[in-house]
Parts: sequence; structure tokens; C-alpha cells
Amino acid sequence: MNPFDDTYFMKKALLEAEEAYKKGEVPVGAVIVFKNQIIARAHNLTERLNDVTAHAEMQAFTSAADYLGGKYLRDCTLYVTVEPCQMCAGASYWTQIGKIVYGASEPRSGFTVLGTKLHPKTKVVSGVLEEECGQLMRRFFVEKRNLN
Amino acid sequence: MNPFDDTYFMKKALLEAEEAYKKGEVPVGAVIVFKNQIIARAHNLTERLNDVTAHAEMQAFTSAADYLGGKYLRDCTLYVTVEPCQMCAGASYWTQIGKIVYGASEPRSGFTVLGTKLHPKTKVVSGVLEEECGQLMRRFFVEKRNLN
Repeated sequence: MNPFDDTYFMKKALLEAEEAYKKGEVPVGAVIVFKNQIIARAHNLTERLNDVTAHAEMQAFTSAADYLGGKYLRDCTLYVTVEPCQMCAGASYWTQIGKIVYGASEPRSGFTVLGTKLHPKTKVVSGVLEEECGQLMRRFFVEKRNLN
Repeated sequence: MNPFDDTYFMKKALLEAEEAYKKGEVPVGAVIVFKNQIIARAHNLTERLNDVTAHAEMQAFTSAADYLGGKYLRDCTLYVTVEPCQMCAGASYWTQIGKIVYGASEPRSGFTVLGTKLHPKTKVVSGVLEEECGQLMRRFFVEKRNLN
């Protein structure tokens, strides 16, 4: 039994998403893993930073590159609770990241439906803790709607 | 005669690209204009910041939103010397920017060939100072090749 499987790390990303939720941010969280070690953790901060580029993944890429001291994340895996958008998938292309694992699909703005090109070396796994990751998003948007 | 036309502002973006060139960065520059005023200037800093997300456009979006105090750039125009990539075009979607003006095309990694979805309100103008913008890129890559 491997304690460091995709579910294990997605739970860590989900903890980040819950941090975003608590701050009133669209609840998306991400971690980046290198050799079974989390080297970056981030959650969406677009409201707090007043910056649409402050998606969880973008911050995680910047942070992981800083940790490793190199621009490329070839031997790393991104765990993110929601399917990346065009911007984040486009950023992943430049990082040459080895693997992207996401939880809930994003049928409107996700990279798969929009056809964003990933780096040829990037593997993709989807649907890990899909229900938990999607549930947090739905809860956020239902509450948001009820407030307005 | 309007002194504040697309060529005028693209020249300002080109000055930024020349700054990148001097620093050994892929020479791409950008400015963002709001009511005929430049509210953000940036150039590519991926090497210096060790961060693939540090494209000129990304920095300019963050800077312009900070200046305006709002996440959206609906009444702004981005001038960028080279056609934006998927990441930057994807970021522009979230900013809802009014207009994108670029100089040289980027047939391999530009958003037009890769089909990145822009915001429906975003107008696009291409080819402004195309020759000057492209020439700086070609000079950079020829010199880079000769060094290696």
C-alpha cells in the first residue's frame, strides 16, 4: 500500500481549497509534489489580491520553481481540485510539468473542452476526489447566489 | 491627427521589449492603456525571476488591475510586441480586456493558431509595427544560437 497516492495529495489540495472557501474566494486549491514531497501549496486569491491571474495553480507554479531553483517542473505533479483553465493549462505548458491530477471537471472554462495545448510530456489524470472537490464549488456558488 | 494611435503605444511596448533584450530575456514588451494613459508597463522577466509565468502581459495585467483598483480591464487596451501565448490570452479572458493590439505573430505558440478563447468583448488588432517587433525577436534568437 502506497500512502502517497493521488488521493493522499488531492486531500492536501482540498485543504487549500477550503482555505480559499473560508476567505470567500472561489474554492480551488493546489499542491505541487516532487519526489513524494509537497514543495508548493496555494489557493485561489483573485479577490484578496484583486488579480485574476492569482489562480491556485499559477501561484503554485511560481512557488515550486522558486523552491527548486529552476523554471521547469518536469519531475513534478500538480494536484488541483478543479480542472485548470486556459491560463493555468497554458502556464503548465511552459513549466513542462510531468503530470497534472485534477478533481472536478469544469465544463465551461476547463482546458479540456477549450482545447488548450499541454506540453507533450505532461500526463493528465482526472476525477480524483471529484465529488468532494465539486461539492465545495457547488456549495460556494449556491451560498453566493443566496447572498445576492 | 491623433498622436495617441496604436503605433504610438506600440512604440512604448517596444521600448519595454528592448529592456528585456538588454537583460538577456526573450524580448517581449507590453503596456496597458486606459483613457489614452499608460497605466502599466512590463517586459518579459522569465529568466531573471526564474518563473515561466513572468511574461510581459501577465505582469502588465496584475499591475493595471492594481492601478485601477479593480480586477477587470474592460476599458483598457493591451499593447504587446508579440502575439500572446495561451497563458496570456487565457489571462486576458479573465480580465475582460477591451482590446488587444499585438505586433509580430507567433506561428508556433500564439493564441490565434492554438485557438485560445478570448472574452467575447475583446477586440484584436494585429501587425502593428510587426517588422520592428519581429526583428528584435529574430535578432535575439540568432545571437542566442551563435552563443551556444
